[in-house]
Amino acid sequence: MILIGERINGGFKDIAKALKEKDKKPVHQWAEKQTEAGADFLDLNMGTASKDPDDMVWLVETVQEIVNTPLSIDSPRPEVVKKALHCCQNEAMINSTTAVEEKLEALVPLAVEHDASLIGVTSGQGGSPQDIDGRVAHAATIFSACMEQGLSTQKLFLDPIAMPLKFMQDQATKVLEAIKQFSMLSDPPPHISVGLSNVASEAKEKSLINRTFLVMAMGAGLDAAICDVMDQKLMNSVATAELILNNEIYSDSYLDTYRMK
Amino acid sequence: MILIGERINGGFKDIAKALKEKDKKPVHQWAEKQTEAGADFLDLNMGTASKDPDDMVWLVETVQEIVNTPLSIDSPRPEVVKKALHCCQNEAMINSTTAVEEKLEALVPLAVEHDASLIGVTSGQGGSPQDIDGRVAHAATIFSACMEQGLSTQKLFLDPIAMPLKFMQDQATKVLEAIKQFSMLSDPPPHISVGLSNVASEAKEKSLINRTFLVMAMGAGLDAAICDVMDQKLMNSVATAELILNNEIYSDSYLDTYRMK
Repeated sequence: MILIGERINGGFKDIAKALKEKDKKPVHQWAEKQTEAGADFLDLNMGTASKDPDDMVWLVETVQEIVNTPLSIDSPRPEVVKKALHCCQNEAMINSTTAVEEKLEALVPLAVEHDASLIGVTSGQGGSPQDIDGRVAHAATIFSACMEQGLSTQKLFLDPIAMPLKFMQDQATKVLEAIKQFSMLSDPPPHISVGLSNVASEAKEKSLINRTFLVMAMGAGLDAAICDVMDQKLMNSVATAELILNNEIYSDSYLDTYRMK
Repeated sequence: MILIGERINGGFKDIAKALKEKDKKPVHQWAEKQTEAGADFLDLNMGTASKDPDDMVWLVETVQEIVNTPLSIDSPRPEVVKKALHCCQNEAMINSTTAVEEKLEALVPLAVEHDASLIGVTSGQGGSPQDIDGRVAHAATIFSACMEQGLSTQKLFLDPIAMPLKFMQDQATKVLEAIKQFSMLSDPPPHISVGLSNVASEAKEKSLINRTFLVMAMGAGLDAAICDVMDQKLMNSVATAELILNNEIYSDSYLDTYRMK
């Protein structure tokens, strides 16, 4: 399972404040904590705190002062992504393109140039589809664009867009089915990722809903998630699902083993 | 989800002792507790404590003194099942037939006669298959025998035989795939059930493994389990998976709602 730590995000007050005041401490802390917790990538998202490419560069450089964990540059603005990628010392991830042509034209070549991974969110000109077929159609568009421009399917992370259970309860089964269909696009399949915390948005039992959805999605073929890697119960569920899927070898101490990977 | 309480089983010392001494108290207590916890059926299994049909009759009658919960008569001996079914006041469940011809010939007509549900464990003359195809072949044999003899597919519970993760780790994904294939046997599909606790047999993290496997199996199409209904974390996971599958309606208090169903 490829875990992308969600916590360095301007949607959180401490990160918004850190960005404005150029205070490195909270960024350093979350970079270290999430890395220790097992994050394979650290997502960097400025939220509404800034649109300035130089602020994303500051985030990248600040994180890289303290950890070597690969970074996921999370911005709707290609110019922000482009500038940040130039500062990444490790292979990075672009979060994200959609199936919209201009997005694909801007971001797929950038991923190829930097040998970066690319999250492809299955929305298009008309927004986010709420059915399975719409998600699969956008997935196919993104997949084809990557193939044509020479981005390996192993660099592509398709995202079926998980939606809040509390407000759009019928979407969860559609996302699970979309995951199954994405995993049949090629052999080996592209990676499949979700923004997990969205599922439990505004719900009371956030952690329980997140981890239950995640293991069901792993059963359907999901192999990546942007999530709260600090949630120990979530991490234990992931470790257990990996055992069940025979991706990790059983030992009585498998939870510790997984944590220390 | 159809939950079959596993606790009245001669494999547990208190039940073995109760059977030998005809002490009703532990049987009453577990019948009540499991019913309160949400069991849809109570499994009655004498284990190695007795082979006597009259002891099973005693169990049935003892449980029926205290609760109305439907019973699952769990015995490898058709004569035990036959005698016990005659005492069941509610529609009962037979646990279980296999794909072996003599078993099917003895138990399917008994299920039809008593309008009972029937668990069909997908093993045969050669024992329990360890691949997907063997499980599906036995499932088809059982399914056909039920169809031919007029047992509704809605009374059939196919069981792909979950095996201990600790000793046969590759079996879990095969069971999950078998569940997917069983669910394509008919529309609506037959019920699909597992003996859940077997998955975590001898493992350290029993509860975590059980509930993680169960929700993954529910995502694949499982809709029944013989399990520890007293495990509150398991029950919360089941309630959450039911929300995700859109089988229950979301409310912030869905855990309580599910518990009181």
